[in-house]
Amino acid sequence: MNRTYLIKPVLDYDYPTAVYGEGIYLYDHTGKQYIDGSSGAVTASIGHRVKEVVEAMIAQANQVSFTYRSQFTNEPAEKLAKKLSEWAPGDLNWSFFVNSGSEATETAMKIAIQYWQERGYGRKNKVLSRWMSYHGITLGALSMSGHVLRRKRFIPLLEDFPSASPPYCYRCPFNSTYPGCNLMCAKELETAIKRIGAENIAAFIAEPIIGASGGAVTPPDGYYQEIKAICERNEILFIADEVMTGIGRTGKRFAVEHWGVVPDLIALGKGMSAGYTPIAATLVSDRVMEPILRGSKAIMAGHTYSANPQSAAVSLAVLEYIEKHRLVEAAAEQGQYLMEKLQQLANMFEMVGDVRGKGLLLGMEFVADRLLKTPFHPETDVTNRIVARAFEKGLLVYPAAGGIDGAGDAVLIAPPLVIQKAEIDRLVSILEDTIREVESELRSEGWTGQLFAG
Amino acid sequence: MNRTYLIKPVLDYDYPTAVYGEGIYLYDHTGKQYIDGSSGAVTASIGHRVKEVVEAMIAQANQVSFTYRSQFTNEPAEKLAKKLSEWAPGDLNWSFFVNSGSEATETAMKIAIQYWQERGYGRKNKVLSRWMSYHGITLGALSMSGHVLRRKRFIPLLEDFPSASPPYCYRCPFNSTYPGCNLMCAKELETAIKRIGAENIAAFIAEPIIGASGGAVTPPDGYYQEIKAICERNEILFIADEVMTGIGRTGKRFAVEHWGVVPDLIALGKGMSAGYTPIAATLVSDRVMEPILRGSKAIMAGHTYSANPQSAAVSLAVLEYIEKHRLVEAAAEQGQYLMEKLQQLANMFEMVGDVRGKGLLLGMEFVADRLLKTPFHPETDVTNRIVARAFEKGLLVYPAAGGIDGAGDAVLIAPPLVIQKAEIDRLVSILEDTIREVESELRSEGWTGQLFAG
Repeated sequence: MNRTYLIKPVLDYDYPTAVYGEGIYLYDHTGKQYIDGSSGAVTASIGHRVKEVVEAMIAQANQVSFTYRSQFTNEPAEKLAKKLSEWAPGDLNWSFFVNSGSEATETAMKIAIQYWQERGYGRKNKVLSRWMSYHGITLGALSMSGHVLRRKRFIPLLEDFPSASPPYCYRCPFNSTYPGCNLMCAKELETAIKRIGAENIAAFIAEPIIGASGGAVTPPDGYYQEIKAICERNEILFIADEVMTGIGRTGKRFAVEHWGVVPDLIALGKGMSAGYTPIAATLVSDRVMEPILRGSKAIMAGHTYSANPQSAAVSLAVLEYIEKHRLVEAAAEQGQYLMEKLQQLANMFEMVGDVRGKGLLLGMEFVADRLLKTPFHPETDVTNRIVARAFEKGLLVYPAAGGIDGAGDAVLIAPPLVIQKAEIDRLVSILEDTIREVESELRSEGWTGQLFAG
Repeated sequence: MNRTYLIKPVLDYDYPTAVYGEGIYLYDHTGKQYIDGSSGAVTASIGHRVKEVVEAMIAQANQVSFTYRSQFTNEPAEKLAKKLSEWAPGDLNWSFFVNSGSEATETAMKIAIQYWQERGYGRKNKVLSRWMSYHGITLGALSMSGHVLRRKRFIPLLEDFPSASPPYCYRCPFNSTYPGCNLMCAKELETAIKRIGAENIAAFIAEPIIGASGGAVTPPDGYYQEIKAICERNEILFIADEVMTGIGRTGKRFAVEHWGVVPDLIALGKGMSAGYTPIAATLVSDRVMEPILRGSKAIMAGHTYSANPQSAAVSLAVLEYIEKHRLVEAAAEQGQYLMEKLQQLANMFEMVGDVRGKGLLLGMEFVADRLLKTPFHPETDVTNRIVARAFEKGLLVYPAAGGIDGAGDAVLIAPPLVIQKAEIDRLVSILEDTIREVESELRSEGWTGQLFAG
């Protein structure tokens, strides 16, 4: 391993070098091909090296790449904001552009707080969230994140915002089952609000489908309708963190549309530029903008690169490509096909406890005992074994925490929305081989698949 | 004004549309030309539409734009990190790439905290800073920022990190003069450390030259040497926030080099990609990496787009362009010339109180009375008048707070490092006309230039 100057996730690991991409495939320096079964970090939604996006990038660079938002506006940013207002549900008609998902959730938080200030409710400045969530790594975003491991080093600097349980039916936090549970996990939010005091709370934030911290944990029908009703009757804004789920990933433009709910604010990132440039956005509803437009007329947020024309032009080209190729519909259709295939794997392998998700954001949870849903011992390192074995075989899947305390095992399968059925077959075939090999390895280490064999 | 969907800084203002850039010039939709005298937000350091950068952008896009850092490394990010280690002083040999200056200062903060944790000092988690500073808008960055106006809405969510006065000799916080002051402003940091307890403090962060919150406030010689000595003897890391000052802007590669000081961490942004893509970095010294490499081997930070090859290739091309055209040296030389011209303006106009800065990061502060250094009344809105009048005349300058409480008036003059002497003459000539007209307007409103005419 040559001396490296680049700080990588695992400092003593020798990562292969990616050199080329094309569609759903990546190639490393040895020429090895990988199916990008996770779109990187659920980001490369339209696949790699898409001609139309590269052309838009070049066209804008030949005009102007950077102008500053306090001096000029620019056409790409205006058009991108207009396009997002057409895509977004309800009256979510305004866009604030930033550079990352963390900045998007923080900007949503700030706008929610400012909204109440402009209306004269200066004490409403907490943003409640759920455990088993991830909203980003900057301190404000991490304050909202119910992610035990990522919070750990910085607890003294964080707000205690996580206040409710996730809608994690596979391991119900209330040991109940839907629909008999009467959506206790949603109702717990109202309990938390009453304890903390609605007069101190600006908003509630949640990922419609829990991504990296849960492995595509999907709530039962009625959950978000209940959440939205609780927010409304307590005068609390609802922020949907659609950084991972938005822009078609789940087979709808925005995941909240699966439940017919219109949030007050939406955070976007990842798929909105599909990896071709860092850009993210906070979408804001007319309702939320109204007192600000009437009041201070300025939102206290913004970054140097906010609404820069180069990034906006690239993101706009991505959205146009998704529209032209009907990739939202494709995500729904191919996602259905992939889901059926993954369910077949679940029937084949004892270590697969659950398969879940929507569209092309699917998760698979691994367990030591299917009946008891017992997680593997953390030292068994099952997630990393699956990810590493798949990687060896030329398939990228994304590690996700599973289990109610973040200690379980799960992976996300989230290929680019352009994936075709034959490619899904190949992806699933590699995943099948991967699980088979890991299962056999586990058996050779003494695992039986039944902790309490009768 | 058409319906806009884009949230801009001032919500009811009709911004002109930038459509084209070339070198130090920008053009709006009416064809009007502007000298980019502020490089946007002190960002477009090599000017607009630089062929070599656009070519590098295209070349990378034709290979692969996005790969995820937990799956692959890539050549552009490795080369960029190596190049930065060559540029950076001392043993600052490691780069952690992020998307914005806010993320870079937050990442520096986190690495500083983790450094002490790995060494067994888990309580060292505060990051002291100065008043009259700006380190970014995400909550962690804003916690470090001594920027009264930008903190205001979020005070209940912020840490009280600003603890020392700025080295603002024009308005010495101690009413003293250099060198008789014995650098009281630096020594105040040690007082703060003793009060708060070094055992609770991970680092001290400062902008070597105070940018937007001060208008190029430059410390006297000896200040940073004293700061570094205080940090060392109290076992506190020193983070230089060079987001605005780094990468040649001040006539050195890094502004700390003016004082021969090697920080433990450096935050970079803006000029490192000169506006061609959002990218920023935290540079980390070998010293700071050492216990982490020996310990957990993983830094708890990182964003989806961290070290993406597309942004890294663009930033690398910018650094190579700066090297090839010797733009660091150019910044020093042209900065000297610009400074002399601005000092001539200061002699011509009574409202110019101070001219300061280094290289091509220069500031001009405006006062109601030069002798008493009395600021204009905030409602006189002098900064905005200067910025708007210059804009009308086709010159971009950047508004900066002046005055010890952020209520004074100043602008930054910070053109691209490629500016030539004839262009500087034109810039200064427009600025001269601007100041003349604003002065005359102020006189017509009753201002005399002497508050207590004797």
